[in-house]
Amino acid sequence: MSSKSEQKNLKASVAPAEPSGNPFDRRSFLVGAAAGAASLALPGWISATEDVFASATGLTGFDDDLSAIRAEITKRHDETVQRMQTWMKQPSIAAENRGMNEGCELAMQMLRDAGFQQVTKIPTDGQPGIFATLDAGAPKTLGLYFMYDVKQVDPSEWSSPPWEARIVDKPGFGKVVVGRGAVNQKGPESTFLAALHAIRGAGRKLPVNFVFVAEGEEEIGSPHFAQVVHRPEVLAALKKTVGIFMPFASQDPDGKVTAFLGAKGVVELELVSSGEKWGRGPKADIHSSNKARLDSPAWHLVKALNTLVSADGNDPAIAGFADKARPISAQEKAMVAEAARRLDEKALMKQMGVEHWVHDVSFEESLELLVSKPTVNIEGLVGGYTGPGGKTILPHRAMAKMDMRLVPDMTAADALAALKAHLAKNGFGDIEVNMTGGYDPTTTPADAAVVRAEHAVYKRNGIDPIVMPRLAGSWPGYVFTGDPLRLPAGHFGLGHGSGAHAPNEYYVIESSNPKVQGIDGAVMSYVEYLYEVARTA
Amino acid sequence: MSSKSEQKNLKASVAPAEPSGNPFDRRSFLVGAAAGAASLALPGWISATEDVFASATGLTGFDDDLSAIRAEITKRHDETVQRMQTWMKQPSIAAENRGMNEGCELAMQMLRDAGFQQVTKIPTDGQPGIFATLDAGAPKTLGLYFMYDVKQVDPSEWSSPPWEARIVDKPGFGKVVVGRGAVNQKGPESTFLAALHAIRGAGRKLPVNFVFVAEGEEEIGSPHFAQVVHRPEVLAALKKTVGIFMPFASQDPDGKVTAFLGAKGVVELELVSSGEKWGRGPKADIHSSNKARLDSPAWHLVKALNTLVSADGNDPAIAGFADKARPISAQEKAMVAEAARRLDEKALMKQMGVEHWVHDVSFEESLELLVSKPTVNIEGLVGGYTGPGGKTILPHRAMAKMDMRLVPDMTAADALAALKAHLAKNGFGDIEVNMTGGYDPTTTPADAAVVRAEHAVYKRNGIDPIVMPRLAGSWPGYVFTGDPLRLPAGHFGLGHGSGAHAPNEYYVIESSNPKVQGIDGAVMSYVEYLYEVARTA
Repeated sequence: MSSKSEQKNLKASVAPAEPSGNPFDRRSFLVGAAAGAASLALPGWISATEDVFASATGLTGFDDDLSAIRAEITKRHDETVQRMQTWMKQPSIAAENRGMNEGCELAMQMLRDAGFQQVTKIPTDGQPGIFATLDAGAPKTLGLYFMYDVKQVDPSEWSSPPWEARIVDKPGFGKVVVGRGAVNQKGPESTFLAALHAIRGAGRKLPVNFVFVAEGEEEIGSPHFAQVVHRPEVLAALKKTVGIFMPFASQDPDGKVTAFLGAKGVVELELVSSGEKWGRGPKADIHSSNKARLDSPAWHLVKALNTLVSADGNDPAIAGFADKARPISAQEKAMVAEAARRLDEKALMKQMGVEHWVHDVSFEESLELLVSKPTVNIEGLVGGYTGPGGKTILPHRAMAKMDMRLVPDMTAADALAALKAHLAKNGFGDIEVNMTGGYDPTTTPADAAVVRAEHAVYKRNGIDPIVMPRLAGSWPGYVFTGDPLRLPAGHFGLGHGSGAHAPNEYYVIESSNPKVQGIDGAVMSYVEYLYEVARTA
Repeated sequence: MSSKSEQKNLKASVAPAEPSGNPFDRRSFLVGAAAGAASLALPGWISATEDVFASATGLTGFDDDLSAIRAEITKRHDETVQRMQTWMKQPSIAAENRGMNEGCELAMQMLRDAGFQQVTKIPTDGQPGIFATLDAGAPKTLGLYFMYDVKQVDPSEWSSPPWEARIVDKPGFGKVVVGRGAVNQKGPESTFLAALHAIRGAGRKLPVNFVFVAEGEEEIGSPHFAQVVHRPEVLAALKKTVGIFMPFASQDPDGKVTAFLGAKGVVELELVSSGEKWGRGPKADIHSSNKARLDSPAWHLVKALNTLVSADGNDPAIAGFADKARPISAQEKAMVAEAARRLDEKALMKQMGVEHWVHDVSFEESLELLVSKPTVNIEGLVGGYTGPGGKTILPHRAMAKMDMRLVPDMTAADALAALKAHLAKNGFGDIEVNMTGGYDPTTTPADAAVVRAEHAVYKRNGIDPIVMPRLAGSWPGYVFTGDPLRLPAGHFGLGHGSGAHAPNEYYVIESSNPKVQGIDGAVMSYVEYLYEVARTA
């Protein structure tokens, strides 16, 4: 989302997600979570899933299908790993316009290899998207969302080269692949494609048809993804789907899963105060002794920022900003209350490195805020001299990098307009508001077929997911859940990985923890999901 | 000046000084200044000075002295240039601890070569200082202040390599030397030493004795200079002097000179808001979705900054900050009024790139503010993500780099204490206040002998200097003018250069403008000054 991927941070709603370079592991916060709740002994899917599934579905042939496919997954393990490594070895960084054409072509070829009959590059005003279809002659059609770009890297920070996709032993996890895109998102995406290869390799028909859309700008905020989705032929195809999903390694290090029924919207923007636009103060950095006779664009920015939030910095004070914010519902409050019961507040705070929630609220209230509170955040401040020590200048320009998180029924356009109007009304109309990314909130009903299918597979694998009303982070699901499609959309998949945007990003290939699936188990979770969608949707 | 040199910005009091990298020429603001005032046709000193001087002093032998010395200066022109180049070619950057020992040793050797009988390296807690004496058997002793360090460079920004000290033709100026230290301060300093060589080379006795002190940390705020000056043997020697001066290229591109009777004091500091110290918010950068439940150290900083100045950012609002500020006196107001009459406001504003003074005051009021108004300035803001686009983090730390300018009788210690007390009282006691440099204001009486000698030489050279009560910038003259020495101190010298702290710093060697002295004329101005001090002090 916006200038960075956030669906790799789907856990961020209850756990802190690591920013790039921060070793904090967003996935491990659930370690130590209330052990009494939901920690049923997990059956490995290999031993138990088929029988459970077969008895649950009662559908002829599925038993045989799953057995044969499982065998095929095992047989194709090395092929699956190699396909993933091939993809990971191709840098495709939209922010640097690096390897994008090669990355797009490679993704298209992988789709063709997986059985997509129609694969089309869709030009946009930025990097191209991909539209593809696979007609299996099935009654149901499922939508798929991929990204083929990855985040930037600083190779000096990595323990193994980011484009080598090296398989290493990671203590406590097993064999993992290390490289950019391992978990965000090439690893889970290629794992999903392996499910199609396994089903077809086992001589079985795919249980659903597919309509596929991908973008190459997810890591820079999906600025042109709507241009892909809103093409008439793409809209027409997507309208036939029962919903959209993105392959995702959803397991925490202890195997647990948190599921989200949507995500906050976001607006990322820069507020820029400058002498040029203000018409006061200098138009270039000038010696700081001149402060005595000249206005300061940096002070002007501070004074403007000061009006945007309450005295403690926690409550948005932008007039009209949250007028359309829908209060948390009774059903959502119940979900949050259950999550608060099942999560371990102390362990979470310790792992986040925090001692207080805002206003010193309770854990349950903190989770309510997380899912329901619109926010105005400073991502960064930069202006004038930023190096070591000081430099006696009066800067002509200063900037705040901001994000605003939105809940239904707020929109990115409304939030931006409210901010601009607020600044103008308070004497800061000269301050530039440059939106760099963002989109509306995403909401998917709990009873949508694709959601029920996800939860059915989790439960069949012994996982009772914590369900949260929405992710506090953001992803561009609004293109699916908003007008004109109004489709359910979400993420799904077993398996584990971490380090999205950080050095040493990894994805588990062979798990040493029986509660966490390796890549073969992750492939099988997609197989189960497709059969479940076919059965349920 | 604190973490940067400011005496190279002596003109900053009426003109904007360029920050590093800014091509704006602080010296050229006087171009176009009221042509009717003080623009007497300048006699070149070679043709007129001696006679004028001789008739002014009426002292036997000076005539002959000056003639012989002038000839010696011409004879030694190449030697003077080479000495300067040798010094400039030795990098000596305290901020990078680069070449400091070599730079110190070279400066000491140059002093010995110039006739100083005693040259001692003075250790400090930082880079060493230098204490040297030259006993010429003269009745009067003059103090000298040098710096042997220079500002950092980015060689890629230079048109000729910064350590090559290349002589180039600069249209409108003549032959100039280009390199780091050219004007700040190795050029004028080596030019001064050339005056001693010329006097001795002409077989004349030096008209005054010298007590010399130098530091190697001027560009990082002179943090240990007082350790040099306050050594008992140094204090004892300095007490015998009639005052202190630093060689300085004081001419603007049009030949005019502005003189200052002191300088504002300065405190440079960093205000740091962090989750660690606050005990609220994160202790490491965390995903920005957490703003809904976590306090923000960046907002905390904004709220603290907001309390430091008035709503328009122009008036300090730190309680007690300026309690001891002495109002501008009638005499000072008169100086400012004359400066306002002689300077061209429109040309100045154009060259500074500004359209309004604070509060839209008149030019005269703007100059009054410049010399008499204490200030609180933001030099820089830095925190969280500062790169291109955005990054969805809630930063654990944000910093404002600040400077506060002080007028008599404020002190750096009082200002710092007032800021800390103000923050504590307003709920921001957790915000770190890290002073990185600074010192008290400097004041020298207009009737001090060393000042009268400066002005006498300027006038004898046809220059009627604009005299300002003080420089709005700062230099560490407080160690001389404050307790226990209470000596007059200032800068002097003809000649022109610019680009201190910027790329392509230069100093005029052979001037193509008859109103601006080249290096030989600058050497002669020091000769005249020494004779004038001997006569006057």
